[in-house]
Amino acid sequence: MKVTDGRSADARRRSERSRLAILESATELVREVGYEKMTIEAIAARAGVGKQTIYRWWPSKGAVLFDSFVAMNENGAELAALPDTGDIESDLKAVLAATVDELNDPLYDVPMRALNTAISNDEALAAQYEEWLETPMREVKRRRLQAAQDAGQLSPAVDLDIAIDLIWGPLLNRWLQRSGPLNSTYTNRIVDSVLDGIRAR
Amino acid sequence: MKVTDGRSADARRRSERSRLAILESATELVREVGYEKMTIEAIAARAGVGKQTIYRWWPSKGAVLFDSFVAMNENGAELAALPDTGDIESDLKAVLAATVDELNDPLYDVPMRALNTAISNDEALAAQYEEWLETPMREVKRRRLQAAQDAGQLSPAVDLDIAIDLIWGPLLNRWLQRSGPLNSTYTNRIVDSVLDGIRAR
Repeated sequence: MKVTDGRSADARRRSERSRLAILESATELVREVGYEKMTIEAIAARAGVGKQTIYRWWPSKGAVLFDSFVAMNENGAELAALPDTGDIESDLKAVLAATVDELNDPLYDVPMRALNTAISNDEALAAQYEEWLETPMREVKRRRLQAAQDAGQLSPAVDLDIAIDLIWGPLLNRWLQRSGPLNSTYTNRIVDSVLDGIRAR
Repeated sequence: MKVTDGRSADARRRSERSRLAILESATELVREVGYEKMTIEAIAARAGVGKQTIYRWWPSKGAVLFDSFVAMNENGAELAALPDTGDIESDLKAVLAATVDELNDPLYDVPMRALNTAISNDEALAAQYEEWLETPMREVKRRRLQAAQDAGQLSPAVDLDIAIDLIWGPLLNRWLQRSGPLNSTYTNRIVDSVLDGIRAR
């Protein structure tokens, strides 16, 4: 986003400070009041900027939240590869157990749930999410499954994109729909069922 | 909900007319402006009632929407059994293809997406959804899978609740996250992969 063209170094620094203050305020606010009650006005007030400053850079509160989520991830670790001990079953169970821990942590649950709400109701944001977050995460998952396929642990006929949806989809659904407890007992059963299938043999 | 106790038949009829007008207005509004922009004020104006009337019966716009969705389903067909031709694979593919058609229909997509948004952000509403809609739907699905298990088409070891999550979860995720096209090519591949599993044999 070229917001700094042709301006002085001081103005650019002020801009960047405002941008970071806005993103931080959005993250804090969504944790405190939830997505529905979070407003652009409240974000502006907390960040110490006018609300027009926010509207100049972002079209909606969902878009602010999206960027604050991207910034949060940039500040954390690089998107790592999934663990590869050579045993696809135990690696998948470990990865999903770690995701369960994240989803049970309000610091992560609240903004991530809000982001999913925004995505579900905003096609432009969904496309941006797809490009910036979902596609790189999917690539990381696909590489681990590909290694298992290459090692002969997964059938050569398996469509890895479908496999990703089967392994990660049910947990995300249960989380978003609040339709059952999030724990590794559940995710272990998911992994077992996906690996082995359900048809009688 | 006992809102009619001790009142005249006329007052009860007026109450019921207001209630139906409110539910109908909520369904129309969410289709026109979406969930985020729908307000209690606008629902009240369209229904020709004061907004206090709405707040007397419902705590939030999500709760109104929930009841309008329940009412819509009550007016439609009874929740039917899933088709049972004796072939679990083709029956599941037919059921998911029909769900794909519904999710691609804006008349269904918009209020259902709004309801899912509300559920994701409201634990009380999620519990109500679980009891009134999710559990009966899950029971219908379980009965069809149970019949397949009894007929020897599914492994006796299969946990049918996990199977339901694997079969229906990925489509719901793709719909809510807008992460790919909704069509029967996709759902057929889901059914094939769940039935057969992905582990090399």
